[in-house]
Amino acid sequence: MNADPTLDYARYDHIRPIRWTGDALELLDQRRLPFVVEQVLCTDSDAVAEAIHALTVRGAPAIGIAAAWGAVLAARDVQADDGAAALRALEPALARLNAARPTAVNLAWALARMRAVLAAAGGDWRQVLAREAQAIADEDLAANRRMGTLGAGLIAPGSGVLTHCNTGSLATAGFGTALGVIRAGRAQGRIAQVYAGETRPWLQGARLTVWELQQDGIDATLIADSAAAHLMKTGAVQWVIVGADRICANGDTANKIGTYQLAIAARHHGVKVMVVAPSSTVDMATADGGLIEIEQRDPGELFGVGGTRTVAEGIAAWNPVFDVTPGTLIDAIVTERGVIAAPDRASMQAAFGG
Amino acid sequence: MNADPTLDYARYDHIRPIRWTGDALELLDQRRLPFVVEQVLCTDSDAVAEAIHALTVRGAPAIGIAAAWGAVLAARDVQADDGAAALRALEPALARLNAARPTAVNLAWALARMRAVLAAAGGDWRQVLAREAQAIADEDLAANRRMGTLGAGLIAPGSGVLTHCNTGSLATAGFGTALGVIRAGRAQGRIAQVYAGETRPWLQGARLTVWELQQDGIDATLIADSAAAHLMKTGAVQWVIVGADRICANGDTANKIGTYQLAIAARHHGVKVMVVAPSSTVDMATADGGLIEIEQRDPGELFGVGGTRTVAEGIAAWNPVFDVTPGTLIDAIVTERGVIAAPDRASMQAAFGG
Repeated sequence: MNADPTLDYARYDHIRPIRWTGDALELLDQRRLPFVVEQVLCTDSDAVAEAIHALTVRGAPAIGIAAAWGAVLAARDVQADDGAAALRALEPALARLNAARPTAVNLAWALARMRAVLAAAGGDWRQVLAREAQAIADEDLAANRRMGTLGAGLIAPGSGVLTHCNTGSLATAGFGTALGVIRAGRAQGRIAQVYAGETRPWLQGARLTVWELQQDGIDATLIADSAAAHLMKTGAVQWVIVGADRICANGDTANKIGTYQLAIAARHHGVKVMVVAPSSTVDMATADGGLIEIEQRDPGELFGVGGTRTVAEGIAAWNPVFDVTPGTLIDAIVTERGVIAAPDRASMQAAFGG
Repeated sequence: MNADPTLDYARYDHIRPIRWTGDALELLDQRRLPFVVEQVLCTDSDAVAEAIHALTVRGAPAIGIAAAWGAVLAARDVQADDGAAALRALEPALARLNAARPTAVNLAWALARMRAVLAAAGGDWRQVLAREAQAIADEDLAANRRMGTLGAGLIAPGSGVLTHCNTGSLATAGFGTALGVIRAGRAQGRIAQVYAGETRPWLQGARLTVWELQQDGIDATLIADSAAAHLMKTGAVQWVIVGADRICANGDTANKIGTYQLAIAARHHGVKVMVVAPSSTVDMATADGGLIEIEQRDPGELFGVGGTRTVAEGIAAWNPVFDVTPGTLIDAIVTERGVIAAPDRASMQAAFGG
């Protein structure tokens, strides 16, 4: 896989959401950014599962990587002669990690990889497990750099782009998926202007994305999620660029709530939609988006911001945190394996089998 | 104009955003609701202009009414033998009121009415002015009750509806425009479920609408603005019902930012869009929505909520607080004069002349 040889990737390495210390997992607490930069140390796998559930770490690729290290932590208490025996002992912990969040397939994918290497491992299963977790992280970073180049290549010079949620270093092993494309596109002079939606209720765009881009010296302009269609009408954006939590066999894509609304508005205005995600996000076993479990989170996430309550007591709220954008509204899916234009069952199958 | 004789309107009268005390204007401070219920007393017209600009009072009909009382306050310092002389003296104060906010036409409309009666008045011009302000408020309330009946009549029994921003008693002389339709439709058993978008950045939906409906015993479900298209996909709503700040001669309608995005999503799902506004919101002098000045407010409105800053320092934001929904995406415009289905230049002209 070739990244862009002219790009200085090191300058995007300043944010590390997940760090393996050798005997514990250090997570940057993304609930407290941008004002409090604080690490949370997880010393057992249940702490990792809780960190994933509570959004201490978030972003589809990042939670896969965190879960892989969670499996390594779970293995520390296990005594077994070979991988198969270790796997039996680890199953309850792996199941708890797997259940931490339902929508992003990367979590199940990473744990499936851990299970597979473990099942085949001999007496060195402990080292095999740790090497696999590191490989998952390393491959994610490499995939992001490759996707940055591939995605940026689709963007005409001088374009404006709109992104949603956070898909940067914070959501991945580094560089980012959609944000990696924006970084590469900006470095190549293709992207003149970046807009980011706030991404209620959790404000990943407002708290994380514009802050992450600011560290790179990329000026992004924050908008209310509701202002996207009005922005498109002004002609300011040519691409909506987003990540994904699960891409189905027909190209239907689950991503942060609001992505579907953006895709509808984009189609209405002739703005193109690019989904950027590593192949670990592709789930060929799920035929279409109607089969994806959409995570419903606590209605309380809509009742205020950062400890300030804004809504009267006794109010009901509906808080699905993902939605599904049909493949028919997506102009390009970019993975590290290449670009799929106008994705459908046939083109997905050609690229990913299954 | 006939309201619904079976409806007990008094039960919706508990919230009064604007109260004339006889020598001052008492405004319910809508910036602090729902947790702090506090009145602000305006004793001169510049205080009213500032209250309109600062959103102490908001909602297109409400700011028209507040401005009319502002004119009455301005007149207290004027000595003049007749209305024409008073008008000359009042012009600077009227101009400051008129400039308080640009998008809602009701502000200019109410002040034009005040100017017109003043120009024709004799020695009793002071009483004429006060009577006109009261008439503007009274007519608004009557129009809302009538529109409630007309709009509810369009809704099939058992429907779900989604509203945006706040269009209730708080935004009007009472009962509300879109919220008046929802109240009437709910009382008639036509509306089974009400959803309200948060309405970032100012959270009128989250802070005001669900609270106002709660006072009536109407359960509304709050959603993130971004969740509207996903909600429509579930089949839960049949109508999007919103107010308006200005309706052009071809039916193009300026309303709270996000309305346009909802209308696009609604059309995509076969959900209908109803705009509810008194005829004072109709501006036949503006040919289409491209000619409407869209108010841009302080980017800081996107940097946090209720004193809690959520966005890093040094970030840019774009904060248009209205957008324009083309008449072609609107299924019905309801004013107190009747219902205009699929509005266009011809049907608008037939209803409003000009």
